This record gives sequence, C-alpha cells and structure tokens, in this order.
Amino acid sequence: MKRAVSTILVRYLEVDRMGAAHHSHYLAWFEVGRTDLLRSLGCTYGELETEGIHLPVVEVSCRYRAPARYDDLLEVETLLADVSGSRVTFEYRLRRKGEEAVLAEARTVHATVNGDGRVVRLPAPYRDLLAGP
Amino acid sequence: MKRAVSTILVRYLEVDRMGAAHHSHYLAWFEVGRTDLLRSLGCTYGELETEGIHLPVVEVSCRYRAPARYDDLLEVETLLADVSGSRVTFEYRLRRKGEEAVLAEARTVHATVNGDGRVVRLPAPYRDLLAGP
Amino acid sequence: MKRAVSTILVRYLEVDRMGAAHHSHYLAWFEVGRTDLLRSLGCTYGELETEGIHLPVVEVSCRYRAPARYDDLLEVETLLADVSGSRVTFEYRLRRKGEEAVLAEARTVHATVNGDGRVVRLPAPYRDLLAGP
Amino acid sequence: MKRAVSTILVRYLEVDRMGAAHHSHYLAWFEVGRTDLLRSLGCTYGELETEGIHLPVVEVSCRYRAPARYDDLLEVETLLADVSGSRVTFEYRLRRKGEEAVLAEARTVHATVNGDGRVVRLPAPYRDLLAGP
Repeated sequence: MKRAVSTILVRYLEVDRMGAAHHSHYLAWFEVGRTDLLRSLGCTYGELETEGIHLPVVEVSCRYRAPARYDDLLEVETLLADVSGSRVTFEYRLRRKGEEAVLAEARTVHATVNGDGRVVRLPAPYRDLLAGP
Repeated sequence: MKRAVSTILVRYLEVDRMGAAHHSHYLAWFEVGRTDLLRSLGCTYGELETEGIHLPVVEVSCRYRAPARYDDLLEVETLLADVSGSRVTFEYRLRRKGEEAVLAEARTVHATVNGDGRVVRLPAPYRDLLAGP
Repeated sequence: MKRAVSTILVRYLEVDRMGAAHHSHYLAWFEVGRTDLLRSLGCTYGELETEGIHLPVVEVSCRYRAPARYDDLLEVETLLADVSGSRVTFEYRLRRKGEEAVLAEARTVHATVNGDGRVVRLPAPYRDLLAGP
Repeated sequence: MKRAVSTILVRYLEVDRMGAAHHSHYLAWFEVGRTDLLRSLGCTYGELETEGIHLPVVEVSCRYRAPARYDDLLEVETLLADVSGSRVTFEYRLRRKGEEAVLAEARTVHATVNGDGRVVRLPAPYRDLLAGP
C-alpha cells in the first residue's frame, strides 16, 4: 500500500489550556501527511490544483487515544487507502517518534472536483499515479 | 432533546485558496456550539474545568456536504445526543442562516476526565444537568 | 473618524496552555473588526475582492497589555485611521465588554492591490466611501 | 549575536483565498523560530515553563514585503536582539530557502512573568544562558 511518514513538531500555538494539542490541529497534520504522500508519488497537490483538480474533504473521522503535548516530535503515517472513480481515501496513524503507541488514528475521504466544485473523475495520469501498482 | 443554536460568521482567515472554509475550522465552530449548549443548561465549560472536570474529544466524525464561504452567516445546531457514565456525545448540523440545506453534520464523543487526565464519572450535579429531564 | 465596534467571544481553541488567548488570534479578531467597519460603510470586503481589489496586510503592530481569557466577551473598536493613494490604515482597541481597560491596541497597514498583486490606487467609489466625510 | 535558522513548509491550511499565507500564521512561524533559538542555547521553552517562567508576547511588529505561497519552503532566521531585566526581544527575517529576498521581518518583545502572570526578573541561570557570551 502507498505510504508516507511525515514529521510534525507540536507548536505552542497548537496546545490548549489542558496542555494537550487541540483536536482540530490534527486535521492540519493529516493534511501535511497526505501532501507528503502525493509528493512521494511524484505529484504535488499544488500541481493538481494547477491542473484544475481539487480534493476537498467530504468526510473526516478521527479517534484520539492519548494526548500529544507541546514540543512532542510526532510521526504521521499516511496510507492511500482507496482510489475509486471520483473519491480518494487516506488513512492516518499518529505516534510519537520512536514510540509504538498510537496517539490518534483517522481517515479522510476526498471528492475529486474541478475548479467549479463539480465532481469529476480523476484524470487518467493522476489515477494511474495514485491507483497504479 | 437538549439543543442549542449558535451563530458563526465565517472569517477571512478560515477560508482556503479554493474559496471555501477549511474543514478543520468546522471543529472550532462545533466547539462553540457545545459551549453554548452547556451554557444554556446553566453550566459553562469554564466552570466545569474549574471543578476539575475536562471533556477532551475522543472521537470526531464529520460529513461535509457543501462548502461554507467567506462572510457566510452560519447556524450550528447542537444536540446533546448521549450522556453515559464517563462519556458525553454531541451532534451538530451546520446550515446557512435561514436555509434548510445542511452544509455539514458531525458528532463528537468526549471522555470525562479529571485534571490528571484520568477518566472519571461525571459528578452527579453535572450528570443531572446534562442527563436530566 | 470612521469607527465600528465588534464583539468577539474567546474560543477554547484560541487559548494556550498559559490560559490566555494566544497572541496570533488577535490578528483574526482585528480582521473581524475591519470587516465590520467596511460593512458599516456600505462595502463588504467580499465585494471589494469581487471587484478585483485586495487589501493585504503590509504592516502589523500590536501591544498586548493584559491577557484575554477563555470565554471572555471582548469588544474590538476599529478606527479607519488613514486612506491615502494605495494604502489604508486601521487602528484597533480591544477591551472586555463593559470595561475601560485596554487589553491590546494595534495598527494594520494595507496595500491596495489588484488580482495580480500589483499595487493600484483604490478606485474612486471606494476611496470616496472610505475617505469621504 | 545569538541566532537560529528554522525551516517551515507552508501548509494548505495557512493559505487564504488570495493564494497567500495569511498574515496571522507568520506569528506561529516566528514562535517556532524563537523556540528553536532557545533550544540551540540549551534551554527549551517547555523547561522554562516547568521552572515557572513564561515569556508572553507584549509587543509584535511585522512588515510583510512579499507573499509566501502554499508549499513554499521557508527559512525563519531568528536573532536574540536584547535581554534586559524582565524583557526579552527577538527579531526575525523570513525568506524562501535559498533566496536572498526577505518576505517579512518582525520583532517580538516578551515579558518574563511567573505562573501568576507577575513580571519577574529572569532567573540568573537563564539570564546567563540568554545574555551571556
């Protein structure tokens, strides 16, 4: 399965008054993860958008198992879970670097839309890149 | 069912280069929603924390149906879906004010933990407030 | 002087582990302030952008005098301090609603640029709106 | 002069509908910069807070000279500009990696306060670390 690992250092801004990273920032980290995965496949998200293909999030789910703390060095493991006609699904696992315990696991589903927001099939070259062997 | 409606004006900062509100900011809006719901029940989240009770998010799921745009006036409808021993579940529906179409629907599950992050039963007065008639 | 007052409720997300609103979020609140000021003059920022006029921030300065806390109800007072050829300057004062003490005071300078990012003179109808009596 | 260089990759979330990084996120990047500078001097900001010393921002000023774009790889150069009794001042220059042009330059002034928010002198070991040769 296509996979990338990204490194995130928890920023002061991202930590709430419980001393834990606020749950909304995880979504930004997962975005870093799928951006890195696309890049590793030879296709940056910026190029996709230049080609008029956007990947808005249509579904998010996340389970938070243990808090991430200020200045923690984290690893986001991103998997390309599914590519179908006009949907791309990614899965994520978040850990502290060098540790086994999963802090959070998540899944995002994306529609492939054009510049007008209309759902379109992912053009062949990108589908090959994402869905190919 | 216990319910509150909150008003959100989409900020410039919250809009991405597709011209749509970024999906991560919805989680902040839902947080406004459940804060307002708690307040309407006579218990601010700030008081809960002063009493040593925290409600960290342990699960989020959200379906994004249509984009929210810059300067849209939105309504978050928040429902208190479930209160059990040490869990509280909220559900949300996001619409443009005065419109029927649901832009997003979501659910957050919260653990009730003490200041050390240990899961505890929600103290009786709060359980009554939340789970009572 | 042209002036608007906006109301902000400090969100949980905006508070850091010192228990105070993080200084970066003030910039988002000031953005709400100048958006409200423009609206009160009969010109939304969205319309300006539709007309191909953007007001990117070229200078920010802010003095933080006392912390804003979670769930504080704040008032941003925004003043249109100066409109010259291709610059617009706003000033801000942040207080808790109903209190005199100023929590922060700030100033933002904006260039007027077109869709390509080139500096342009503010078109006459908007200049009249902003600089007029 | 004490100095550190930090690397920032502009996140999708940080880019507004003009296609440029929103000016408020620069403050988060400068925070990464001064955190790295403290770390390079042998003192993490987390340790400082554990010792009961906080460095809230009391003044920010920033000049934005040219936009940063999505997926730009940036370098924040952070300088420790001044350490006096109860004030620490940092200066920042932001560039694209490998380029000379300065995208933004900024300055933050911090008070040294204790856990109650009272201004205190920076304890000697930290003053030596920061102000020493």
